[in-house]
Amino acid sequence: MKRIGMLTSGGDCQSLNATMRGIGKALFNYYGNEIQIIGFIDGYKGLMHNEYKELTSRDFSGILDEGGTILGTSRQPFKMMRVIEDGFDKVAAMKRTYKHHNLDCLCVLGGNGSQKTANLLREEGLNVIGLPKTIDNDLFGTDMTFGFQTAVNIATEAIDCIHTTAASHGRVFIIEVMGHAAGNLTLHAGIAGGADIILIPEIPYDIKAVAKAVERRAAEGKNFTIIAMAEGAMSKEDASLKKKELEKKRSSMPASYELGDEITKLTGQEVRITVPGHTQRGGRPCPYDRVLSTRLGAAAAQFVIREKYGVLVGIHNDKIVPVPLQDVAGKLKLVDPESEIVAQTRMIGISFGDK
Amino acid sequence: MKRIGMLTSGGDCQSLNATMRGIGKALFNYYGNEIQIIGFIDGYKGLMHNEYKELTSRDFSGILDEGGTILGTSRQPFKMMRVIEDGFDKVAAMKRTYKHHNLDCLCVLGGNGSQKTANLLREEGLNVIGLPKTIDNDLFGTDMTFGFQTAVNIATEAIDCIHTTAASHGRVFIIEVMGHAAGNLTLHAGIAGGADIILIPEIPYDIKAVAKAVERRAAEGKNFTIIAMAEGAMSKEDASLKKKELEKKRSSMPASYELGDEITKLTGQEVRITVPGHTQRGGRPCPYDRVLSTRLGAAAAQFVIREKYGVLVGIHNDKIVPVPLQDVAGKLKLVDPESEIVAQTRMIGISFGDK
Amino acid sequence: MKRIGMLTSGGDCQSLNATMRGIGKALFNYYGNEIQIIGFIDGYKGLMHNEYKELTSRDFSGILDEGGTILGTSRQPFKMMRVIEDGFDKVAAMKRTYKHHNLDCLCVLGGNGSQKTANLLREEGLNVIGLPKTIDNDLFGTDMTFGFQTAVNIATEAIDCIHTTAASHGRVFIIEVMGHAAGNLTLHAGIAGGADIILIPEIPYDIKAVAKAVERRAAEGKNFTIIAMAEGAMSKEDASLKKKELEKKRSSMPASYELGDEITKLTGQEVRITVPGHTQRGGRPCPYDRVLSTRLGAAAAQFVIREKYGVLVGIHNDKIVPVPLQDVAGKLKLVDPESEIVAQTRMIGISFGDK
Amino acid sequence: MKRIGMLTSGGDCQSLNATMRGIGKALFNYYGNEIQIIGFIDGYKGLMHNEYKELTSRDFSGILDEGGTILGTSRQPFKMMRVIEDGFDKVAAMKRTYKHHNLDCLCVLGGNGSQKTANLLREEGLNVIGLPKTIDNDLFGTDMTFGFQTAVNIATEAIDCIHTTAASHGRVFIIEVMGHAAGNLTLHAGIAGGADIILIPEIPYDIKAVAKAVERRAAEGKNFTIIAMAEGAMSKEDASLKKKELEKKRSSMPASYELGDEITKLTGQEVRITVPGHTQRGGRPCPYDRVLSTRLGAAAAQFVIREKYGVLVGIHNDKIVPVPLQDVAGKLKLVDPESEIVAQTRMIGISFGDK
Repeated sequence: MKRIGMLTSGGDCQSLNATMRGIGKALFNYYGNEIQIIGFIDGYKGLMHNEYKELTSRDFSGILDEGGTILGTSRQPFKMMRVIEDGFDKVAAMKRTYKHHNLDCLCVLGGNGSQKTANLLREEGLNVIGLPKTIDNDLFGTDMTFGFQTAVNIATEAIDCIHTTAASHGRVFIIEVMGHAAGNLTLHAGIAGGADIILIPEIPYDIKAVAKAVERRAAEGKNFTIIAMAEGAMSKEDASLKKKELEKKRSSMPASYELGDEITKLTGQEVRITVPGHTQRGGRPCPYDRVLSTRLGAAAAQFVIREKYGVLVGIHNDKIVPVPLQDVAGKLKLVDPESEIVAQTRMIGISFGDK
Repeated sequence: MKRIGMLTSGGDCQSLNATMRGIGKALFNYYGNEIQIIGFIDGYKGLMHNEYKELTSRDFSGILDEGGTILGTSRQPFKMMRVIEDGFDKVAAMKRTYKHHNLDCLCVLGGNGSQKTANLLREEGLNVIGLPKTIDNDLFGTDMTFGFQTAVNIATEAIDCIHTTAASHGRVFIIEVMGHAAGNLTLHAGIAGGADIILIPEIPYDIKAVAKAVERRAAEGKNFTIIAMAEGAMSKEDASLKKKELEKKRSSMPASYELGDEITKLTGQEVRITVPGHTQRGGRPCPYDRVLSTRLGAAAAQFVIREKYGVLVGIHNDKIVPVPLQDVAGKLKLVDPESEIVAQTRMIGISFGDK
Repeated sequence: MKRIGMLTSGGDCQSLNATMRGIGKALFNYYGNEIQIIGFIDGYKGLMHNEYKELTSRDFSGILDEGGTILGTSRQPFKMMRVIEDGFDKVAAMKRTYKHHNLDCLCVLGGNGSQKTANLLREEGLNVIGLPKTIDNDLFGTDMTFGFQTAVNIATEAIDCIHTTAASHGRVFIIEVMGHAAGNLTLHAGIAGGADIILIPEIPYDIKAVAKAVERRAAEGKNFTIIAMAEGAMSKEDASLKKKELEKKRSSMPASYELGDEITKLTGQEVRITVPGHTQRGGRPCPYDRVLSTRLGAAAAQFVIREKYGVLVGIHNDKIVPVPLQDVAGKLKLVDPESEIVAQTRMIGISFGDK
Repeated sequence: MKRIGMLTSGGDCQSLNATMRGIGKALFNYYGNEIQIIGFIDGYKGLMHNEYKELTSRDFSGILDEGGTILGTSRQPFKMMRVIEDGFDKVAAMKRTYKHHNLDCLCVLGGNGSQKTANLLREEGLNVIGLPKTIDNDLFGTDMTFGFQTAVNIATEAIDCIHTTAASHGRVFIIEVMGHAAGNLTLHAGIAGGADIILIPEIPYDIKAVAKAVERRAAEGKNFTIIAMAEGAMSKEDASLKKKELEKKRSSMPASYELGDEITKLTGQEVRITVPGHTQRGGRPCPYDRVLSTRLGAAAAQFVIREKYGVLVGIHNDKIVPVPLQDVAGKLKLVDPESEIVAQTRMIGISFGDK
């Protein structure tokens, strides 16, 4: 009898259920009655406190296109992992639950922080397989994460809607897209939505260059400007601030509102802000994500079968790759300012506000 | 030769082009070469300053499902109409343009403020036909306005997305839906999105009742709560404030953020806010709106043919009705707290936060 | 203790679950523990053979936007009702089940045939409440049925897709929309999709007039033509055939293929056919249908509370009306060729192929 | 002064305009006034008969999300290229037009047949750049073609709709997806739509294995089965027929209808067929395709600037690659039955009907 644990951790995203379905279907298909799958509730919390439900074959039916997660999730502040809080040793507790269920392996669907914790558990001797979940596509070691393409669709849909209203009214619009550290989502949604200016954390902007780009649009006879801005985008000045100073500054006003004010000051143009916010994490996964999730899920099952542990199930050049968790933990895959896609974006006249 | 003017005024919405297409196709179909259609640019501004383009039959092709407006629009602050600004008499200027083009009639696609101005022009002796545009469905004299159903779709889609993320994380979410005075949009999107609490301007809320509704959800074992809130929703206390005091209060903080803080204070629960904002005005019109717009447009053409002027093209009980503009101007169609739909909403357990 | 039965009958459509949720939530909200709801499986079949599941409050959670029906359904060939098949008296069996569960009332979600059976059960002394389900909106006694608007959306989406391909290739396209007897769905989707020709059963077409309309498009410099055709649309010749002859003719070739051949013969133009088929019954209900279903469901619960039986829950002029089932049974609400909407459709230049 | 020709050829698909916009924006951005772009009407036809329009910077605005092609297209039966028809030498005519406009290069947006012709023109000494258009993703030398992902979305949406109706009625449904030679579209839509059986040309099926898979579903207590079938899918027997025999057989009945009959014969189950057909080529491009098209378009412009001719703009491992047209012409990229994705699909229990 094989025993597998499963949990979804961190900010939720759209294809978690499709991924678990891939793992579950493949495992039940291979092992038949010789497999038991334990789903922990609300991420690592459930593992700590041994809150779980056993998942049967039927639990994986009909969830391919359902948003959210049938297991629930919780934000996983990484720091908590190391500390012993009020005398409660979290890591020890998780190990205890793992042993209690006599697990062969734990599948962790999560992003950066969650995979870091997964690696910690690996270091503690547990068998862990990571699956790359995040709308930011900023996980190291994989070309693509599930959730990303659906989030691109939602953010693009928002820009599409704003496009018609911006054109009708002749205004500057800023759409603030999710992404604190990584600009992948903003870059893709910005290109797909036909934004005129794209601002991402990886390419700090110069407010004067932004204003110039807005004014060039007007000079070309275009009466409106669409700016796709990552929530973590920042000016060159802010980029040189210390992290704490920046956090303090940001806490009082979102970046997009500040930028809007500055554009109005410099160009005299009316600016409106739209923040799609958490809608970008929700709703049904798009077909692209459903295929990706199914593949990653089946591949994870394959790793279970082959007892290939301690890895993230990555995909590279359309092929599954096992990426050692220690290589994933603590690294981010950001937009490379020298990448082809950035160069191509510049070529068609989109400004990154940097020059 | 018949000469018809046309303009789109006020905040843009999704089915303006479909409506103009209805008018234009019907007129060209009836009059053939014996019709000239003048489209004024950016709403009443274009009429004031004689900025226009002649619209040919071809201009109305292929725009049925295009968002925005091919004529542009501008917010129309009603007060400006009366005043003579810097020696420029706006009403006189609009009349001058109308006479200059020797128009038989002016078709005004607009909401409350715009129809008020339309009525003013009617009082000045111009032939005017109004068409009911607004995402708020708050125009007096018609069961339905174009734009409303598409906006309901967009706001509902946002609530749908939030639903999966709220359920995954077990949180309280407030989605702030457009609507300063009227709650129609919030009410419909709230029901369609499966909100647990709906807050609208017409039914001032009691913060304690809202908190109680949140806590009842928890008591029933539901780990999340969705609140659909109109931007103009207000507490009973605020409803008793003078308008100026309220405006002052609101300018510093949107209603949803204030409400979120209070819920956290009273229930201890984490609250997240989402504001779909201007996306609710944009994008492609839904099939319902395209049909409605086509019908209203064709009916407006019928009024032109029959020289039935000074009216809004309303629809009541699925039949076109001409509503005298003086009856429309300055009135609002709000949600009736005693209406069937409100009672039915309460019946299925949705709280309006009032008791 | 109140005991209510519930079943979904006939071809499935999109807002069945939302409607049952409306009934269920309102009943549990009103009666609390003093209510028992029995859901019969696969429509009247379940009632005949006493196949059921008890529905708890939780069964109605999270199904607002789910397509299909949690109870299953089956086509209900009306004739079977009267007959005793292989010694099995179907009506007696259904009565027996009703009595067995000691039901206070049976809620039937269904279209024409299903409501006819509902009326039969009423005549047999059972308490029945009907709810108007059909994508055809052809149920007598109600302005609107749930399912219709979602089906309009799907059919329109298909026409939208065909539009771009038709325009690119310069072809004639026929989209065959569901609707054997009633053209409501085709009429609305045709207008919303910008069809050039709309063919419905209520307005038999003249193939020469259809060909002329195709050629007029070409003469106007338009290189493509979109025809929205109901599956039950027929030529004037076919309309004069006896029902049996027509059925025989149709069995060998769908109406759209025959029409396509004739158009090619008369105009020399290449014709392509698209049949969205059962997709029109599936998928998630649109917000319009979710609101309608919620209202109808809550109203049905109200009827249960007031013991108002033997009626269909209709909606007229935005108000709930109880329509006696004997008035509904056996009648159809068709497109009136003299209605406003048909006249408006003609006004903008759309041909019904009749002249 | 640089002079570039542009044409769209073959069956239309969804991101043609986005791709041309990418090329056009990048060229105007780089060359300013020193560029002239000639768009040929209706594909190679326009090139043969010198039917064209000059495309200005403005023509590329606002078309990013428009379906169809602003240039029109026509099917390009490859054989015609070689022949001289009625004394008209087609290749000579195309060369003449190219010379007449004094073109530096011709950009051809097209699929297999169209790139074969592009290669022919290259052999004749013209400078040609190909761009990979096809909903089938079967073009040799590139990981991805534009149009594919949007078509996957549409086909998946159809399967999603069928899913709810199949489940409600407990039926077998076949959805016939586009793809005569290549099964990529069916494979992806089948996985994304949660199909139970996927039939593609690359893996001939055994009707008994298909029937067994249907019956296994029933045995597992699932009351419905979804079959995603490529239009070119065939049984092992048919796969052994000569091409002509097969064509003859197919002309009388589409593959899906024949399969449906056989399943009914072998299992006794009712089967319904849905054919989304040309809708799969239409509508607005999805964000994924808009990004891909923008990148490919900008890359083509880069090739123009660098005078890199005679190549298809491919993308491999997220990097642009120039693929010699002679390597592309006449080859197809099919689903590899031994590929990872096929193995993963099998792993989760989906049957290819082959064993």
